[in-house]
This record gives sequence, structure tokens and C-alpha cells, in this order.
Amino acid sequence: MARYGSRMLVPVDLKKKPWEQELPLHNRWHPDIPPVAEATTGELFRVEMIDFSGGAITKNYTAEDAKYVDLSAVHHLSGPIRIVDSDGIPAQPGDLLAVEICNLGPLPGDEWGFTATFDRENGGGFLTDHFPYATKAIWYFEGIYAYSPQIPGVRFPGITHPGIIGTAPSMELLNIWNERERDVAENGIHSLKLCEVLHSRPLANLPTEKSCLLGKIEKDTDEWEKIAREAARTIPGRENGGNCDIKNLSRGSKVYLPVFVEGANLSTGDMHFSQGDGEVSLCGAIEMSGFLELKCEIIRGGMKEYLTPMGPTPLHVNPIFEIGPVEPRFSEWLVFEGISVDESGRQHYLDASVAYKRAVLNAIDYISKFGYSKEQVYLLLSCCPCEGRISGIVDAPNACATLAIPTAIFDQDIRPKNNKVPIGPRLVKKPDVFKCTYDGNLPITKNFSASF
Amino acid sequence: MARYGSRMLVPVDLKKKPWEQELPLHNRWHPDIPPVAEATTGELFRVEMIDFSGGAITKNYTAEDAKYVDLSAVHHLSGPIRIVDSDGIPAQPGDLLAVEICNLGPLPGDEWGFTATFDRENGGGFLTDHFPYATKAIWYFEGIYAYSPQIPGVRFPGITHPGIIGTAPSMELLNIWNERERDVAENGIHSLKLCEVLHSRPLANLPTEKSCLLGKIEKDTDEWEKIAREAARTIPGRENGGNCDIKNLSRGSKVYLPVFVEGANLSTGDMHFSQGDGEVSLCGAIEMSGFLELKCEIIRGGMKEYLTPMGPTPLHVNPIFEIGPVEPRFSEWLVFEGISVDESGRQHYLDASVAYKRAVLNAIDYISKFGYSKEQVYLLLSCCPCEGRISGIVDAPNACATLAIPTAIFDQDIRPKNNKVPIGPRLVKKPDVFKCTYDGNLPITKNFSASF
Amino acid sequence: MARYGSRMLVPVDLKKKPWEQELPLHNRWHPDIPPVAEATTGELFRVEMIDFSGGAITKNYTAEDAKYVDLSAVHHLSGPIRIVDSDGIPAQPGDLLAVEICNLGPLPGDEWGFTATFDRENGGGFLTDHFPYATKAIWYFEGIYAYSPQIPGVRFPGITHPGIIGTAPSMELLNIWNERERDVAENGIHSLKLCEVLHSRPLANLPTEKSCLLGKIEKDTDEWEKIAREAARTIPGRENGGNCDIKNLSRGSKVYLPVFVEGANLSTGDMHFSQGDGEVSLCGAIEMSGFLELKCEIIRGGMKEYLTPMGPTPLHVNPIFEIGPVEPRFSEWLVFEGISVDESGRQHYLDASVAYKRAVLNAIDYISKFGYSKEQVYLLLSCCPCEGRISGIVDAPNACATLAIPTAIFDQDIRPKNNKVPIGPRLVKKPDVFKCTYDGNLPITKNFSASF
Amino acid sequence: MARYGSRMLVPVDLKKKPWEQELPLHNRWHPDIPPVAEATTGELFRVEMIDFSGGAITKNYTAEDAKYVDLSAVHHLSGPIRIVDSDGIPAQPGDLLAVEICNLGPLPGDEWGFTATFDRENGGGFLTDHFPYATKAIWYFEGIYAYSPQIPGVRFPGITHPGIIGTAPSMELLNIWNERERDVAENGIHSLKLCEVLHSRPLANLPTEKSCLLGKIEKDTDEWEKIAREAARTIPGRENGGNCDIKNLSRGSKVYLPVFVEGANLSTGDMHFSQGDGEVSLCGAIEMSGFLELKCEIIRGGMKEYLTPMGPTPLHVNPIFEIGPVEPRFSEWLVFEGISVDESGRQHYLDASVAYKRAVLNAIDYISKFGYSKEQVYLLLSCCPCEGRISGIVDAPNACATLAIPTAIFDQDIRPKNNKVPIGPRLVKKPDVFKCTYDGNLPITKNFSASF
Repeated sequence: MARYGSRMLVPVDLKKKPWEQELPLHNRWHPDIPPVAEATTGELFRVEMIDFSGGAITKNYTAEDAKYVDLSAVHHLSGPIRIVDSDGIPAQPGDLLAVEICNLGPLPGDEWGFTATFDRENGGGFLTDHFPYATKAIWYFEGIYAYSPQIPGVRFPGITHPGIIGTAPSMELLNIWNERERDVAENGIHSLKLCEVLHSRPLANLPTEKSCLLGKIEKDTDEWEKIAREAARTIPGRENGGNCDIKNLSRGSKVYLPVFVEGANLSTGDMHFSQGDGEVSLCGAIEMSGFLELKCEIIRGGMKEYLTPMGPTPLHVNPIFEIGPVEPRFSEWLVFEGISVDESGRQHYLDASVAYKRAVLNAIDYISKFGYSKEQVYLLLSCCPCEGRISGIVDAPNACATLAIPTAIFDQDIRPKNNKVPIGPRLVKKPDVFKCTYDGNLPITKNFSASF
Repeated sequence: MARYGSRMLVPVDLKKKPWEQELPLHNRWHPDIPPVAEATTGELFRVEMIDFSGGAITKNYTAEDAKYVDLSAVHHLSGPIRIVDSDGIPAQPGDLLAVEICNLGPLPGDEWGFTATFDRENGGGFLTDHFPYATKAIWYFEGIYAYSPQIPGVRFPGITHPGIIGTAPSMELLNIWNERERDVAENGIHSLKLCEVLHSRPLANLPTEKSCLLGKIEKDTDEWEKIAREAARTIPGRENGGNCDIKNLSRGSKVYLPVFVEGANLSTGDMHFSQGDGEVSLCGAIEMSGFLELKCEIIRGGMKEYLTPMGPTPLHVNPIFEIGPVEPRFSEWLVFEGISVDESGRQHYLDASVAYKRAVLNAIDYISKFGYSKEQVYLLLSCCPCEGRISGIVDAPNACATLAIPTAIFDQDIRPKNNKVPIGPRLVKKPDVFKCTYDGNLPITKNFSASF
Repeated sequence: MARYGSRMLVPVDLKKKPWEQELPLHNRWHPDIPPVAEATTGELFRVEMIDFSGGAITKNYTAEDAKYVDLSAVHHLSGPIRIVDSDGIPAQPGDLLAVEICNLGPLPGDEWGFTATFDRENGGGFLTDHFPYATKAIWYFEGIYAYSPQIPGVRFPGITHPGIIGTAPSMELLNIWNERERDVAENGIHSLKLCEVLHSRPLANLPTEKSCLLGKIEKDTDEWEKIAREAARTIPGRENGGNCDIKNLSRGSKVYLPVFVEGANLSTGDMHFSQGDGEVSLCGAIEMSGFLELKCEIIRGGMKEYLTPMGPTPLHVNPIFEIGPVEPRFSEWLVFEGISVDESGRQHYLDASVAYKRAVLNAIDYISKFGYSKEQVYLLLSCCPCEGRISGIVDAPNACATLAIPTAIFDQDIRPKNNKVPIGPRLVKKPDVFKCTYDGNLPITKNFSASF
Repeated sequence: MARYGSRMLVPVDLKKKPWEQELPLHNRWHPDIPPVAEATTGELFRVEMIDFSGGAITKNYTAEDAKYVDLSAVHHLSGPIRIVDSDGIPAQPGDLLAVEICNLGPLPGDEWGFTATFDRENGGGFLTDHFPYATKAIWYFEGIYAYSPQIPGVRFPGITHPGIIGTAPSMELLNIWNERERDVAENGIHSLKLCEVLHSRPLANLPTEKSCLLGKIEKDTDEWEKIAREAARTIPGRENGGNCDIKNLSRGSKVYLPVFVEGANLSTGDMHFSQGDGEVSLCGAIEMSGFLELKCEIIRGGMKEYLTPMGPTPLHVNPIFEIGPVEPRFSEWLVFEGISVDESGRQHYLDASVAYKRAVLNAIDYISKFGYSKEQVYLLLSCCPCEGRISGIVDAPNACATLAIPTAIFDQDIRPKNNKVPIGPRLVKKPDVFKCTYDGNLPITKNFSASF
């Protein structure tokens, strides 16, 4: 008789701190973080994970925890998992690791999540120059649906996915990362004009020993010190996959990850009940703890066969994936567009980031007319299943980006009508999301034309 | 008995040149281009259009016409159409014009189109630093499907749409456009670091009398001279809609356009049988002649009620739209991602344009493994119904963009397999798209890791 | 250069009577009706058709034409078309004819249709014992959408399709048809207990010379007399395809038809702008004139290879088909179910027809609560894109059938609410569909529990 | 802080027998079976259930358990659950109970199911005259996917749903059921000609004390005896919902159930991982244990407001429902049709059951050409997400039914090709489903034309 069900490979205990877990977590990428478990190709195994903040952001009704979150402690990843084939031969550098996400979801008994923005000086978000202060909303799950007492009048099914899934980098790849990111962190403010428009700080998150978790590597050892100084932060997505925040990587999806070290050393974490394309508020998905049921195959030599490096070395590759068959169906969408002219009226050249920023700002102002505060909509568009598209990227000088929102998530009809926005059904602006003050010094971008 | 069917409002005759049409065409935006026709709210009317190039790019089996195309002559628009309500009162500045696209398609007897790239010095395309020479493919339509003898093994249903639909700008808005685009054209190369990555030239297309068509304005008059010097080119999308190239603006969609001049002065053109998000090869949709059947409503005062300016004046708005119910269904997608690290390995800061460029390059190299030339795939991804998403825009320093391709458009299975890319079914690389030489002097970006 | 566009193969002239058409129409199935045109495999050809009634039912605002329609004159088919391969060799008995519907739609200038019920003694309909009188509604098309002044508050995109597409039967197959249908017509009332529940008359439509049209066969000849006496009526679908009324056989679909005579002799007609599963009111689709653009392939020997006879001879086969990729998307459905207990409370044994009848009756009564007459809903459910399913066919003694209605076709929310059906937005019951009197003598089925 | 997650209301222990469960199960419908639990409107609660057979059919590799199953013991239902509003007032007869299925799935650790046919004399199935013997296949779940070692080459995502959900009948309604079903059981063989075509026995399942489970009613009491003699079997769906086997009643769906007794007394069971429309093999879904997370609302007086009786009493109603937003997406379907002519060639009159039978037979023979045994396909079409439609129900004398199969569930391309069915990739017919002998005496229907 065949085996069925999944083998528990990486359990977590939500009552314990991240560093107390039976199989220790890690929050850095490094080839020398040893595997905590092993899986064989073809078997279905279960990986549990705590939320990206490791419990630092709570279900308390305040945004203070979001404001003071220690970003050097994120993301809390489960793994690494060493992958071997049925003969016990591990994945090898140059192979492709096909990971099928057969199932996923919240951890039983922990069916809630949060969406937040950070303080502008502590990570910020896509629109941090407009919303420089920390905010937070709590979401509760009713099966496939999420709702928030702080954002009434909306309820939607989640396209649940892991924000992070990736393999360990080789030392060579790690060095490439550290070098290029150090360059942008140190010189970007002068060399990259885009920084005039996207205003979150810092520009990059460099290796730091602070709050570093390295799995089975024992603290206060030379090894720990060395790895902690070198290990890449988990914030950006990179060649190994990592924090790609691809919102459709849900049930039934398959990721093809490049293998850089023996055994592949697969790690995953940062579970999202739901996220909008772009995850605009940064802590912008419905962040939660959760589980994955995974099945792996090794495509021997697959990196060379299927991936083409896009950069100076054979390591400059990216994963590819297939999306699964059970996403929510929506048939009606309201679409906002933006062009690459910024809030000051300045023209940018085919800049999709600026165009998308304007599209998101347009959407926020529009939806706030229906009884919401702008902060409510900012968080909502970060986490609801909205689609962000690059519609036109060649018609100089304007890129055109669009944000499509499924109208079915609202309990009112938000389409334009042949008259004024209805006053009656407008929501009272209380309740609202939780907010903190912004005590920093960076300038605020005002949209002088918008009604505040 | 009710009226039915559409009223022919703007016919075109494909045997005539653009400037010989009964209702004269225009290829500029200006408030003083007079309407050529009038439509009443609620009535269904038909607007025909020639292809954006006005017939300059032909179905001849060569790319020379694409290479030497006169970009100052595009796009050839039908209209302007003055919109009045059932009492004969025209749309007013500040109103919102709701335009429903009840139907559209190719013109009977002209069921073909083309996809091309331009020479790098003459417009180029998203990847013009990799593909600096003009190329072209011809597509033939079999009802809902398109196929190209130059790109064998693919056939797909189109999401047909007008690349351009917009209202006339007011003089004030026109001045804003001209000023900001002149700035980028003249100073951008120094002030915008993004220009180091996107390499098409010129940076902006400023007003020019060359090849200017102004509808009913008689040539060689003072009025013509004045308008031609001021009128905005139609290449980028702007506050009035225009060349937004939103690929889902198809049958059953509705656009809500701001009204800047009395009568709205609606123009439309640049019909696309199909386009991928981004329209990456620039002349990148399946360009064709075609017709629209439209129905308009006027939402009085709707600009103020529904749109929020995003910039220094009340004119800095964007259209919004709803997508229609009859798009092709695809259930299986292969997805490529890119991060904001360029081909030289340089790190950019949350730059969605760079990330999307890498995603597209990844996709081109991948699909070319299945028997295609890179130029074939470049044109294919410009015009097939693929989706370009901004997946992550907050995880500094990497933006993550994705390109999703429906696998059903291929007659072979292009998903990664547990072995080598099958040799047998690989297509012979002949036929190929038509190509020209590149005679310019701008440097070429090579991807040294890729197999050429 | 490749050919493109479709070749006009079978034109119709709506100003002419059916028997005056340049290529004569036919309204019977017989192997000896000669082809009027020839098409080669691989070529795209256009077939036009008049509405099934041949213009007998008009856009006049009355149901009298539906009441007195001559059913022996329907359906008016275009063809037969002889299909040959590129070597000129015709399709042979035993081949399979693959017909791709590349495009279809109404005839330009004739964008309207009708939905009707017939008098109970003249064909009736699925619910003719409840609605024994003729009724009619006129639909007008706005591109992809249809609306009816007689059924206000609904508008929907059509899944346009030919009600009839089929090949000519061989003499042997024709004899099988005539024999088995004569048996049910003559003896069915005694032998088939189902007749107690489905009450339309006659039980079958046997060959008749009355109103017979036989294409190129000259009238008043011996040949005509012979064929007219033998030729099968076109009302039911049969082994050759024919009037299957499969509502999803739309753009991009492919039918695999068995070939019984040399050349296949393909005929098509009975165009429907839209139809609900079951076409419950009989003249129940939105009936219209229209065109098809078709492309054929011959699968040599395909009948034996792909079809299995299901009956006493090798001719007892059925076509198979693939549905196309561009149907309207709906995400929200309200579903009504029925079980095989009839209106008198009598239990039937796993009878899906009875179960579906109850589901349709349930739906009619429900929707009529929102301001419609029952006749309006009966016609609406016949022609809107609703789905009729056999949900359970094994749980003796009850079959369970369901009728799913896309809620987006209504301009009000028809889902049950936590209170009474809203009175305010109820439609006034005028306008209504056009109705005639029923002058027959068959008993009426009343639902005594329903509020009339 | 708001509550989140679901309250465990009805647990089951798979290690215990049905009659040993902490909250006793029941397998009959009767107003006097007392509630085992109470739920308040608005709260999310969890109901667990064992498989319909109560563990009688096992994961053993034999069909003997299916052959000798005791049908008088099915279905094992969880509940009844008494529903009260937030003021503690129970649902009242005449109310409508809106039940939202927020989530559902297999029980953790029990991720497998079975599909079977019964012996012809013991329930049979839709095609029991062709397949009179018991068969069985085991399915294992990998997250959203199911696969069976007995039916290789297929794997599909489930549209998981409860086969049974219903409210308790009133005594009056129960009497109506018993009377009408007794009539068909006793007289149907003579009065219902349909019995000549559908051949499962018995025609109806009448009340019996054998294997009766009545929840909290103590056995060997007068009360038990009385109820057991009266209580309706759970096999058919009826006015209270019950065994409707509506395959789309999945995550996010909502059922509106009529309330016949105080508290509504909601029961549910017969969980299906997946089912095809019709559930043709009778034990035809992927049967499993499972859980539901439900949320109820009471619509006071809703039966009168929203449901119209369809029969002689106000109790002759049916539930209505809305389908949820997260069903699997399929874009390509192969469709088989059938008409109401049976295997002997006999013409039936608009009989959708006969037409669907022929469509299913057509599909079985077709797919078996690709390397499957007919029994494998019969079980597959019972449980995979295929759609059964009533396409035409008015074109006398032929009803037309269709069966649409999503092609993506197969690992080979099953569409007809321009040549013979490929020999190479055909599956070896071993493995096969488990089979028993048929020892009964009822005649077998042969399809003499089919290749065996």
C-alpha cells in the first residue's frame, strides 16, 4: 500500500521564541548554515514556519510593535533542508530543484495575520514619503476568507503563498551579492536618481551580526562570527529566489530553483495569507505563521539546460515557476493607471516604478472616496489580491503601469456611477488602522491637489 | 421599434493614404484640432482606423519599412469625435467621459498585422541595446486566432484592443506636457541615471511640423503652422489616456476619460490584434487596421467626483477603466522573474524597469532553447497575451518583476522536464523574422554568459 | 505571401426569401441533397445563414408570428458543403471531419434576434404545460452584449454558436432515424411514461413534403418527391450532429463530425447569439442570422479510430468537440436545484428531465420575485448563458439537476438577503414579453403552491 | 480582540466505530433525532465527519468490501446541529438557513479516499447494466491533488465538497417522502418505463431498522423502534437538501436551506475530495473522511420570501446555493455528447437520463482507447472534475446531454489527432481497478458495436 499524507519535516512551536525552536531557524543566507533536515525526491513533506517577524509583531491593537520592529532580525526561515534523490545522492551545484507546493495554509489555531507599514527611517514602504509613520491592521481568517476589524466592508479569499523560498547561495554568489549591495547602500544616494522618488531607507540592508540567527551554528564561536559578518540579509529576492513575494506562488505551483551548494539547502518562510502585486506597504501581505506541504524533484544539470545567466557570471540566474490551478476567480476588475510623471510633475524616462507609484496613489485616493481613510486603502492594496502590471514600457518617455482591483472584495459597488459618489453607504471613517507618529526628519511628499 | 446595430461615424478607406481619407486623420494632440464627427450619449457608433503607421509598414516580406519608418508621422488617429448628451449639450471640461467598447476587430478583408522592432536610433525598443536592428514578422488572422509564418509553432487568440484612446488636452495641459518632456529630452541623459539601462533614443519625442497631420486644419495656413509647432506627439500615454497600450482594454471594457475641452474630442487609433504587457519590442503589438463600436456616457462633474489629481495641478489625473468579460481563458502559465540587477551585474534600487528587463531577457533565452531565434521570441513576447507583473517593489534594493506566458500558445510543451530540452521536436531556426542591419554607433549590450 | 482572411463560400441575402437565395438552402437531412459549394482542408471559408425560421418570425412587436410558425419549414440550413483535401480527394465515409469555428457572429446590419415559445400544440417547449401560449421577446445587440426592451434590467455577453452543424446521413442511417422516430411518434404516448411529464406535441417530427426545401433538387420532379418523402426533419440532434444546441460551441471551438457520405456534405444553420443550457423555451436561444468562418481537416479513418458506436450498428456514433478559449468569464453564480419529483408530488426514478424541469421552475419563481413576470424569466433562462447540470444521477430514486445563473447579468443583486426581497428596486411588470392566447385543449399544469 | 479560528463543534475519532463516537452519528432523516450540538449565527464552527460508509470500505487492495457493503448503514452523518441566533432564539420552521462553507478538507493523517461501484443487485450505478460487478480504486492526496495507483496517468486538483448537507424534515414532510418513495419502489417497475434503461436496484431505499443509527436516541427503546421504522434513508437528495452531490459546493460556497423543525437541525456528511457531475459510479466520488468549517445565518421567514413550493404542499421546495470563488481553473475541455437513443437503438422522448448515459458511454469508450480499461475510465469519470450538461431538452424526440472532461488531468494529450491513436505512449492495462465477480441474474447490456 502506498504512503499518503505528508511527513512532518520541520515543525515549529508558536509558544516558543524563534531561537528556542527544536529545529533552529535562521534569518540569513549563507552556504555554511547546515541543514536541519533532509527530504528525498518524490516524498511529500511538511514544513512549518513562524511569521517573518518571529512573533515580534503581535495581534495587539497598536502599531507600536511595527514601528519599533528590529529589521535585522527578519525573516525567520525554516530549513535549510537538504534534498537527496532516491539513491541518497544529494542535489549538486548546477542542478535545478523543482519544488511543488502541494498544499499550504495557516497553522491550526493561529488563523490570523497582520499588515503593516514601517517607520520611514526603519524600512518604510513604497509610499513612505506620503505615509512615513508606522500603521497596522489585524486580519482574521474564516477559512478561505480574511477580514479586518480595522478595514470594514472588505472580505476576500486569499491566494496564500510563501513570501520566501530559496536555496542557499554559494560563497561566490554571496560575495557578488554583498559587493553590489554595499555599493548601492554607500553610493546609491548619489549615483541613482531614482532615489529621488522612492524614499524608503536604508537603500540596502547589509550583513550585520545584530539579531543574527544561523540555525545550528553555535553562537559565540568563531564560525558564528565569521558567518554572521558575511551572511546576506533576507530582505531582497535574489538569484536564489528568496524574498520574491510572488503572490501567485500558491497551492499547486511549482518553483524551479537553481542549486548552488550540495544538497540545495532549501529554506522557506514569510508566509502570506494574501498579498497584492508589489506588496506596497512593505510589511504588506497578510503576514502569518503557516505550513507548506512540498514535493521535490532534482533535474540533474538543469541550471545549464534550462536557465541562462543574465549577468557577468554563470550564477546570475533566476528561478522560474508555474502557477497552480486553484486561485480565486474574479471576473470584474477596476483598473487604475499611472505614468512615469511624479507627484511634483517631473517627467521620468520609462520608469515603471514611478508609474506604478502613481497608479497606486490614484487607486488610494479613489477608493478613499467610498468612506475609507487613505491608510486603510494603502494597507488593503498591499494585501488584497490586486494585480500590478507593466502595461507599456516602450512609449518614451512614459512607462504606463496599472493596478487592477477585483471589485468583488468590497460590500459596496465601487465603480463610477452616473452621479456623485453615494453619500449614504459611505463608511464612517472609524474604525481605522492603528497609527504611530513619525518622528524622523526626512521630507514628506504632499500631493497638493488631493483632498486630505 | 428600437434602433440596433451601430451608426458608421468614422469610416476609413484602406486604399487611400492617411491624408486622403474622407474624414481627415490626425497624428497629434491639440485642443484646436476640430472634431470630424459628433456622437450622442447612449448611441452605438462605429469608428474605423488605419494601422498606426498609416500603411507605411506593409505586409511585404522585409523589415526595411520598419527600419526607415518616419516616427514623426505616427500614430494615425481617427477623430476627434465631439460627444453631446441627448439634449445636445456637449461634454464639458471637468466631466468624465465613460466610453464602452462594445465591439472591435480587424477591418473585413484586411485580416493581417505586423510586429516589429525599430532601429535603435529611431525609437528602438525595450531591449534595443541587445537587439539594435529593425526586425519584422507578419501575422495572419484566422478568426480569433493569429499565426505567423515567421514564428512557427505558435498560434493564439487575441485580446484585441485600441492602443490609443483619449480626449483632447486643454492648452494648459498641453503646455505642461511640452515643458516636462522637453526637459527630459534635453537634460535627461545627464539627470536620469536610468538612461544607462534603457537605451532607446530619443528620450522623448517633441513637437515637430514634420509629417504632422492635423485633421480638418488646412495645411499651409498660419493656424496649421501654430498648431503643428505646439501639438503633442502621440507616442507616450499621458493624462488624457492616449497611447497607454493597456492590453486588456478589449471587448466589453469601459474607459473613464477626463474631459479637458468642450465636446471631449475623443480620438482613437493604433489598433492591436494582441499585445503582451509592456509591448516590449515597441512596434510590439500585432499592429493592424480595425474598427471599434463605442457607446459613451457623460458623467457630469465626474473628474472632480471620481479622479484625484496626482501632481501640481488639477489636470494631473489618469483615466480608470473596467475590463470586459470575454478575454481568452488560460489556465497554465510559465513565469519568469527578474530582479533589479542589470546585465553588467550592477545593483539598482527598486527599479521595476530593470527588473522587468531581466525577466524578459530570461524568458527570451529560455524559450529560444526550444528551437527559436532570440529575435523570434522577442517579437512573440511583445505581442502574445503574456502578463508582466510588478511582484515586489519594496524589498530594497531589489524590485522583482515577473513575466507570465500562457503555455497553450505553443504546439510543444515548453515546461522544464526531468531531462534535457528535447532535441527531436526542436524547430529548425528557419524560417526566422525579417532583419535589417544596424548601422548606428551606440554600444551594444552583450550578455556574455548567454549562448549565442 | 500567405493568403489571409476567409473565402466567401456560402453567402445569403437577407432581402431574399429562403428559396430565392443564390445558393439554395435546405431544411431536411438527406444523402442526395447535392453540395452547393466545395471547401478544401486548411482553407478558411465563410458561411452565412439566415435565422432558423427563414425570416418567418420577425422583429415586429407581436408573438403572432411565433404562434403560427410553420415548423415543417425549419431549420433553414446553409450548405451542403463538400470537403476535399489538398489533393482534391473528398472526405470518405468512415473519416472524421474536424471543423474549427474560427469566428462567427451576426450579419452586419442585422444585429438583432428573438426568443420565443411556441403554442403547445405546435411544438411547445420544456414547460409548455405551464406556459402553453406563444410568447416572444426581441433582443438588440450592442457588440458583445444583448438587451431586450421586453425584459428590462438584464444585459449579457453572448456565447454565440450555431445551433446546427452536421454532416449528411447515409441512406442506411436515414432509415434508422425514420424508423425509430416513427415508433415514438406513433406509440410513444402509450409506451413512454415520461410523456406524462413533458407535454409538448408532437412527440416527433416525421418527414413531410410540406414546406420542404431541398437545395439544388428541382421541385416538381420525381427526385424531389422521393427525397422529400424520405428526408429527415432537422429538429432533433442525431448521430450526424445536427441540432445539438450545445451552447459552448463558440469561437475557437472544434467539432469532430463523423462522415457518412462522400464529401461529408457539411451543413450548418440556426445561429444563436446566446443560449442557456437546455434552450428551455424551444425557440429559446436568441435566434438570428449570422456567419461562420470555418476551417476543416479530414482525419482519414477517424470514425473507427476515435468513435465507438453506441447502438446496434457502426453508425450509432456521436460527434465530439473541444470548446474554445474566449467564452465570457463569470465568477458568481446563483444555483437552483431540482429533484425528480414532479409538480403533482409524484416520484420518478432517476429522471434527469423531471429534475431539470423542477430546477427551472424553481428558478423562474425565484427570479420573478425581483419584479419580473414568469414569462420574462422563462425566456431569459432559455437564452442567457446559464448552465444546466446533471449533478446526481445515481441516488435512487432522485436525480438531482441544477441550473446555475450568472448574477452579473442583472442590474440588481438577486442573491437572498437577510431580509425581505427589496420592494423599492422591483421592476414594474410592464413592459412584458409579447403573448398570444392558447386556444388548444391539452390540460394545463398548475403549481397550486406558487403565487400567481 | 476578536475571536478567530473555528470552534470545534462535532469531532470524530477515526479509530472508533461510528456508533462509538463521542457525539453519536446518525444515518437517517427524522425530526425526532435530537441535536448533538448547538451553534450560534455568525460563529465559525468545525464539523468533522467519517466517510459515508463509516469505515466499511477500506484502503485494502480489494473490491470485496464494496461488493458486500451494507447500504442500509449509509450515510454516516454528523449532527444534527441546532442553530440559534445571537439572542439564543432557534431557527424556526419557515426560516431559511444560510450556511457558508468557509473551509473544508480531509482529516489530517487520513489523506486518502476511494471510488467504487457496487454490485448490480446492491445499488449498482448509472451504468450497472454494463458494469454489474463491484470495483474499487484507492486515491491518495498530495495536498490539492489526488492520484490513484489503480488509474495511472491522471492527477487532478479536487473540488472538495460535502455530498450531504441538509436540515431535518418535519413529520409532515417525512410522510410525503415515505409515501412517494414506497410507490416507486413497489410499482415503479411497472409504471415507469424508464426502468428499462436505468437498471440499478432497488428502485428506492425505504425505511428499515436494519443498521439504523439514530444519534442520541437510545437503542432498544420504543422511541428508537418508532423512529427507525419511520426515518427516511439518506440516499436520495430531497426537499431538505441532503444527498444532492452537487460537486461545486466547495470552499466559499453558501447554501440556503429551508427550515422545517425548530433549530433547523443541520446535518452533514459524505465528504468528497472530488466528484464528477452525476457521480456516475454511485460510490463515485473520491469518498473520504473530512472536516467542514461553517458559518450560519438565519433569514427569518425566508422560505416564504425566497422559495416557491413546486408541488402540492408548501413543503415542496428545494435549497438554492451560491458557488465559491476558489475552484480549480481549467481552460481546455474535450466534450462528448449523447442523445436519447439507447444502446439497443430505441428512441426515447426527450429523456436527459438516457442522453447522459450515452454521453458517458461514449466518453468511456473514447478514453479507453488511450490505454485504459473501461472500468478505470468509469471510475475516473465518476470522480474527476468533469461537467455533465443538459444541452438540449426541447428538440423532440432527442434530448442532448454532454460530458466535458478537462484535458489537463491526463499526462498525455487525449485530443483526436490527424492520425491513429498513438500506440507508443499507450498505457499498459495493468495496473487496473480492483474487481469482483457479479453473481446476480439480471441481464447485461452489451454494446455489440464496441470493441471489447
